Amino acid sequence: MRPSSSPSEHAGLFDGVLAAGGVRAEVGDAAWVRALLDAEAALARAAARAGLASGADAEAVAAACAVLVVDPGELGAEAAATGNPVVALITRLRAAVPGDAAGLVHRGATSQDIVDTAAMLVAKRALEPLLADLAAAAGLTAALAREHRHTLVAGRTLLQQALPTTFGLIAAGWLTGLDTARRRLAEVRDHRLAAQLGGAAGTLAAYAPDPGAVDAGTAMLAAYSAELGLAEPELPWHTERTRIADLAAALGTAAGAIAKVARDLVLHAQTEVGEVTEGGDAGGSSTLPHKHNPIRAISACAAAAQAPGLVATLLSAMAHEHQRAAGSWHAEWLPLRALLTRTGSAAFQLRAALEGLRVDPGRMRANLELTHGALLAERVAAALGPALGDRAPAVVRAAAARGDLAGDPEITAHLEPARLAALLDPATYVGSADALIDRALRAAAR
Amino acid sequence: MRPSSSPSEHAGLFDGVLAAGGVRAEVGDAAWVRALLDAEAALARAAARAGLASGADAEAVAAACAVLVVDPGELGAEAAATGNPVVALITRLRAAVPGDAAGLVHRGATSQDIVDTAAMLVAKRALEPLLADLAAAAGLTAALAREHRHTLVAGRTLLQQALPTTFGLIAAGWLTGLDTARRRLAEVRDHRLAAQLGGAAGTLAAYAPDPGAVDAGTAMLAAYSAELGLAEPELPWHTERTRIADLAAALGTAAGAIAKVARDLVLHAQTEVGEVTEGGDAGGSSTLPHKHNPIRAISACAAAAQAPGLVATLLSAMAHEHQRAAGSWHAEWLPLRALLTRTGSAAFQLRAALEGLRVDPGRMRANLELTHGALLAERVAAALGPALGDRAPAVVRAAAARGDLAGDPEITAHLEPARLAALLDPATYVGSADALIDRALRAAAR
Amino acid sequence: MRPSSSPSEHAGLFDGVLAAGGVRAEVGDAAWVRALLDAEAALARAAARAGLASGADAEAVAAACAVLVVDPGELGAEAAATGNPVVALITRLRAAVPGDAAGLVHRGATSQDIVDTAAMLVAKRALEPLLADLAAAAGLTAALAREHRHTLVAGRTLLQQALPTTFGLIAAGWLTGLDTARRRLAEVRDHRLAAQLGGAAGTLAAYAPDPGAVDAGTAMLAAYSAELGLAEPELPWHTERTRIADLAAALGTAAGAIAKVARDLVLHAQTEVGEVTEGGDAGGSSTLPHKHNPIRAISACAAAAQAPGLVATLLSAMAHEHQRAAGSWHAEWLPLRALLTRTGSAAFQLRAALEGLRVDPGRMRANLELTHGALLAERVAAALGPALGDRAPAVVRAAAARGDLAGDPEITAHLEPARLAALLDPATYVGSADALIDRALRAAAR
Amino acid sequence: MRPSSSPSEHAGLFDGVLAAGGVRAEVGDAAWVRALLDAEAALARAAARAGLASGADAEAVAAACAVLVVDPGELGAEAAATGNPVVALITRLRAAVPGDAAGLVHRGATSQDIVDTAAMLVAKRALEPLLADLAAAAGLTAALAREHRHTLVAGRTLLQQALPTTFGLIAAGWLTGLDTARRRLAEVRDHRLAAQLGGAAGTLAAYAPDPGAVDAGTAMLAAYSAELGLAEPELPWHTERTRIADLAAALGTAAGAIAKVARDLVLHAQTEVGEVTEGGDAGGSSTLPHKHNPIRAISACAAAAQAPGLVATLLSAMAHEHQRAAGSWHAEWLPLRALLTRTGSAAFQLRAALEGLRVDPGRMRANLELTHGALLAERVAAALGPALGDRAPAVVRAAAARGDLAGDPEITAHLEPARLAALLDPATYVGSADALIDRALRAAAR
Repeated sequence: MRPSSSPSEHAGLFDGVLAAGGVRAEVGDAAWVRALLDAEAALARAAARAGLASGADAEAVAAACAVLVVDPGELGAEAAATGNPVVALITRLRAAVPGDAAGLVHRGATSQDIVDTAAMLVAKRALEPLLADLAAAAGLTAALAREHRHTLVAGRTLLQQALPTTFGLIAAGWLTGLDTARRRLAEVRDHRLAAQLGGAAGTLAAYAPDPGAVDAGTAMLAAYSAELGLAEPELPWHTERTRIADLAAALGTAAGAIAKVARDLVLHAQTEVGEVTEGGDAGGSSTLPHKHNPIRAISACAAAAQAPGLVATLLSAMAHEHQRAAGSWHAEWLPLRALLTRTGSAAFQLRAALEGLRVDPGRMRANLELTHGALLAERVAAALGPALGDRAPAVVRAAAARGDLAGDPEITAHLEPARLAALLDPATYVGSADALIDRALRAAAR
Repeated sequence: MRPSSSPSEHAGLFDGVLAAGGVRAEVGDAAWVRALLDAEAALARAAARAGLASGADAEAVAAACAVLVVDPGELGAEAAATGNPVVALITRLRAAVPGDAAGLVHRGATSQDIVDTAAMLVAKRALEPLLADLAAAAGLTAALAREHRHTLVAGRTLLQQALPTTFGLIAAGWLTGLDTARRRLAEVRDHRLAAQLGGAAGTLAAYAPDPGAVDAGTAMLAAYSAELGLAEPELPWHTERTRIADLAAALGTAAGAIAKVARDLVLHAQTEVGEVTEGGDAGGSSTLPHKHNPIRAISACAAAAQAPGLVATLLSAMAHEHQRAAGSWHAEWLPLRALLTRTGSAAFQLRAALEGLRVDPGRMRANLELTHGALLAERVAAALGPALGDRAPAVVRAAAARGDLAGDPEITAHLEPARLAALLDPATYVGSADALIDRALRAAAR
Repeated sequence: MRPSSSPSEHAGLFDGVLAAGGVRAEVGDAAWVRALLDAEAALARAAARAGLASGADAEAVAAACAVLVVDPGELGAEAAATGNPVVALITRLRAAVPGDAAGLVHRGATSQDIVDTAAMLVAKRALEPLLADLAAAAGLTAALAREHRHTLVAGRTLLQQALPTTFGLIAAGWLTGLDTARRRLAEVRDHRLAAQLGGAAGTLAAYAPDPGAVDAGTAMLAAYSAELGLAEPELPWHTERTRIADLAAALGTAAGAIAKVARDLVLHAQTEVGEVTEGGDAGGSSTLPHKHNPIRAISACAAAAQAPGLVATLLSAMAHEHQRAAGSWHAEWLPLRALLTRTGSAAFQLRAALEGLRVDPGRMRANLELTHGALLAERVAAALGPALGDRAPAVVRAAAARGDLAGDPEITAHLEPARLAALLDPATYVGSADALIDRALRAAAR
Repeated sequence: MRPSSSPSEHAGLFDGVLAAGGVRAEVGDAAWVRALLDAEAALARAAARAGLASGADAEAVAAACAVLVVDPGELGAEAAATGNPVVALITRLRAAVPGDAAGLVHRGATSQDIVDTAAMLVAKRALEPLLADLAAAAGLTAALAREHRHTLVAGRTLLQQALPTTFGLIAAGWLTGLDTARRRLAEVRDHRLAAQLGGAAGTLAAYAPDPGAVDAGTAMLAAYSAELGLAEPELPWHTERTRIADLAAALGTAAGAIAKVARDLVLHAQTEVGEVTEGGDAGGSSTLPHKHNPIRAISACAAAAQAPGLVATLLSAMAHEHQRAAGSWHAEWLPLRALLTRTGSAAFQLRAALEGLRVDPGRMRANLELTHGALLAERVAAALGPALGDRAPAVVRAAAARGDLAGDPEITAHLEPARLAALLDPATYVGSADALIDRALRAAAR
């Protein structure tokens, strides 16, 4: 159980829409202070493991870390002078550790060791609810794919009806995007979130301070990583930021995959389309009682739309100078927090949108018939080819434009009513939809 | 005096570095709630001005707006169902207004009218400290331009020493950037921050609800804008977002102008260059007592680096659908807040960096001499042209490479010692630096 | 007449969709080489004006600039060694100038003086077709606003039908965005596109090379700017990039304003909405003969969507180091070209989409009636208030849900048929639409 | 051997700086046309494999694809009407295929099938030179890590000297970033670049056009992917764009890793630092003969700086509507091309910068001594702790400020000269540098 350094994170005016779900609590100031203290505790215990400190001292430090209560705002204010909140934190921590063990606090580390490690812990913890929401949303699209395997709907290209498809195949496409993004994020979490330890210049020099001393640096790095449950890096990565980039990119990709689904939901829910409706009480309008906005999907779109700019900021900041950067590092903290929160909120809102989704197969079928068979025109023309030759497409196009494919004499002259009806049945013109749904379901189940 | 809906905005862990200065308090949740209530009060008063309500009712609403205390987090939580915090706010406001006057609350407005207007009020108020800090920073660069009008320093191109210049001219260049950015921001504030009022579909229909009624819509728009002290728009701009784009762009440009100066300060402060040092106590290192980081300038760089991505997000969101957008609108709120805060923090930190700046003309002069006259080589070669012809550049280049321009026999054979010394005096090879400084100072004083 | 250094710019595979209109020819390599040579010619003539060269020499240089033919690809290849194409260009130019006048070529300038000046010339020339297309598109929306002043259409919010409005008012909103963006772009063109001249370190030192010489630097700056027809800057702006930022921001805003209109067109053109259709032959599908894609509007959306990232890149590059930057400058060239081209293409495609636009008022009216009066429910409920009190909204909502407002006995009991019909007439519930259209038209005509 | 549809891609004015290396030729119009034709050839052969066409017809189509010469500009111009160049291409291709085999051209495919597949082929081919340059650059940093394992240099944090480190460890950090980015890019190439085939609505319906026919859709998908040597997707991914996002992100990360190294090179090369110099003839200045700009590294920085905005554009475009998008798809083509080109150029330029890099260990040592032992102050203070207690840091700090640690009487009273000299020897205070270098080399060799 992780005690929190303040009872609860302050909820904000826009959080219900844009910081929904479990991520916000994992990336707020309290969670960050907790992670900073977890890093300090791990450092002390690592020193004991590496033979640089006594176990008793290490436990004294860790115990103080476990219970220390600090005001993040105070740390933040003091951080102005040093550029980060660690100096202010360790002053308080040293005061809280009894006796000589206080000397073990922060031993050999630089501020960035602690802040980077905390960022990784925060990210790892924030990914839990985010990945759960993403998995749940994917699961809901899988259920739609199964349930609506044979539900016919207009396939739309460039926002125009094009050919029949099934709503199950549409949902299978959503599933593939969400599942792919989730797998990559989980991979980044497992392999790229690493501990950070290097000391002021990344040499771990403080663990062999005396000329000729045995170098305990790499032992410290291994022990510290193990304590934290984070990957052990080959080198300190103070200015080698591909880990941040990988995390940012995976979040941005997930936001994009979510936005695709949410956008589709909003389009299917248009008054003139009316094929899906969000369930639940949300989405009402105080002034317009007839309206029912797909507010969950819209909120997901709004949160996801903020991801690309944040990813760009994090990529732009990668050229950290020399051994520790003059600004590019500090520029990462808030975009990373915002990116986790916004992507998490998008995942949560999409899950909520899908959970109560009402699908209207009747309206889908009605929309499919809006164009009076035009979506099957190509197929009818192909069947008329042997009889009409090159004229077939024009004949069919003209009849489709009149909305009367089944009543055109030139068509009926060559196609029996039953045959024409079969050709005009969209249910028999969805190609491999069924097989593709199975492929998507199998891939997601692996 | 504007009473705040909560005593003080929560200060955060990273705020001392990245949300420094006065902007944060003007863009926080409390300031937003205040602005939302200010918009509702202006709406009620506008209705009275336009003859749609009694003055007494309007003042009853305005009085309730002035004292209503609400928890932004509660509004935020309730906003999940409607997509914005206004519905929850007006429920509370109506309950706080006595008698029939409650019916006047929010009359004829849509949520976006209130949120957009509040965003403009928030921006206008946040620009006060931001513009003040920017003006102060510009003033400090003007002082440097005057004071160091004759302080010689190496002009550096592609991070290589190129020719002599003066530190005054460098500061004059900083001044031009900061002053230009400030003027554009002030222009946007004065002309582009407008009230928002249109009702649900932007027609102002609710102000002439009955067939045949006199249309009070445009009168409401005028009165509302006047009450708020914001520009009156030609049309409701629910989905015409050039105002947001102009504001975002001006902030992004200001961030860039600040970053230019801050970046230069960091480069001049390098250990190996040492031409400037930040004053004050900030910038020390707990573990490395010899270090003195230019932490103010670094913090300015870090805040400014986050602006371009935020500007891109706001520009990307401009294609608002139809009469009110499905997500692009909600996507603006947090990036706009972050952009104001980050740009404001950058301005504040740059001002702080400049306020105590220690300039070291001696070190500047010493650096200028690191290359033993090579920066004047071109000039010496030109003077040798009549005597040496085409060979002049090579002779000078070789002597410069040896670091001995003044001792080269071929050079001294043709140039008297006094003449050579004059040619090698960087003080006489700074061109129009003086006149350019005057131009910059005059332009900024206009 | 400007002779081009190569007969025609190479057209590309994606240019018909994404580089349409007149901008591409103005920003291509040939146009750039032309602009570089124009800058060199202006420099020579400015030297004559400032008394630093003979008029004959200046005209000799200018004459060579006017006819010199160079292969941009060769310049580009040689540029690898110096970082920009100017060194290779002036080598060729000097060879083309007869006699001593060759010594006047590039006198006192640095490469960046020429490249920045050329960039400004290129931008100014590219803005001609861009602004013309933007003005034409705005004019077309003004015509729509006038023509469809009384054409009723559903006002849509969050992609749901909300209240009636007029297509004229929708077009007036489009007009406001396009016209505002165009005015800002023209303002930037007139006031912010400036000549660049400073010499290697921005001091103009080469125009007073000898100790004690009269400083001709600022006279050169004035004469050079006048020759070019560009604004005269207070200072060289080698590393003060607010001009680039202002240009980028105005282009990004214009792209956003275009995208808003184009996006609306695509939504109105959906099969299920069908309110507008693009004219002309474009938009057909080879395989689906019934389809008619709004391909002009779609192409405008696609081009405009690339602007925000390019703006961000240009803003990110503003922190140019010292007197001339180590990379941030070179990073501007291609994004600026792409931003001009993409925004110009979006303007051209939008103009084309609007030029042949077919508006279907009948379909608009039919869509408005899809909800059987629900869009007027609020108004009917208000009229029933005196009779039914608090029950009025529920009664109306229930009747609207049944699609039978006019047949509900409780409603007809209190509202005469004529009165009810008047209340249900959307034509009388469009508020100030008419007045707002006039405001938009007047503002655009100023 | 792949014949090119035009003899050589047009080289451009900025290409030597910003489109250097082998990528440009692989992403130009000719390469794109080649890839489009390769996709059509693979489609025909896949139909034969799947039993839908004769082998002779397939080979007739493939043979025409192999030799067809088309002008990309013509295709581009015709693309304006349809939104992409495929319709124009297949018109030409059908004309080039003799007899009935012409009917096999493009059978069952939609334009996006061919364009997306071509994009993947182009990306795969462009990644060859890009990955080779990245691998070569990484190899050069590995060599530096080995060669300069014991070369002392100042570790710099926030652009201030902090502690000693080795140039080998710095190079090892560069290696880790480059190698990590290269591995991820190769992974994306191998697993995420997939064939695209779905037909107009993504159902593959055209491969079972008749009611009751055997569905050959998935067989086609398998055969087509195999023909192309691209991964076989589970589903058509017309609007599931995580593949594009993964590719974009990996390129953006690589650009960032390159920028880190290039930026460090530029900083080490500053006149006042002088620790590295680029070899070769590049980097000279026409007007300033003493200058030697690190122009390769600067060009790498400039190219890499354009990546984040392009990545953001591609991520922003992920929400493709329905079955094929209205603009978001078209918005991908140019940013993807630019991102490949810019990242490839950055890799090429960094490789060139590293290839001839001259490292100056003497200057590194001299810079390390600029602060007269201050970088070891912490260590001396630790050694004085037993004697001076809490006063030790202040004593050392004062002596360091005077630049006379070795001459301070209070220090020498407690530390023997030999011991003090050992403590002040930076060579013994680089911690685990050696072990860390080995770890980085081993990881890169895996």
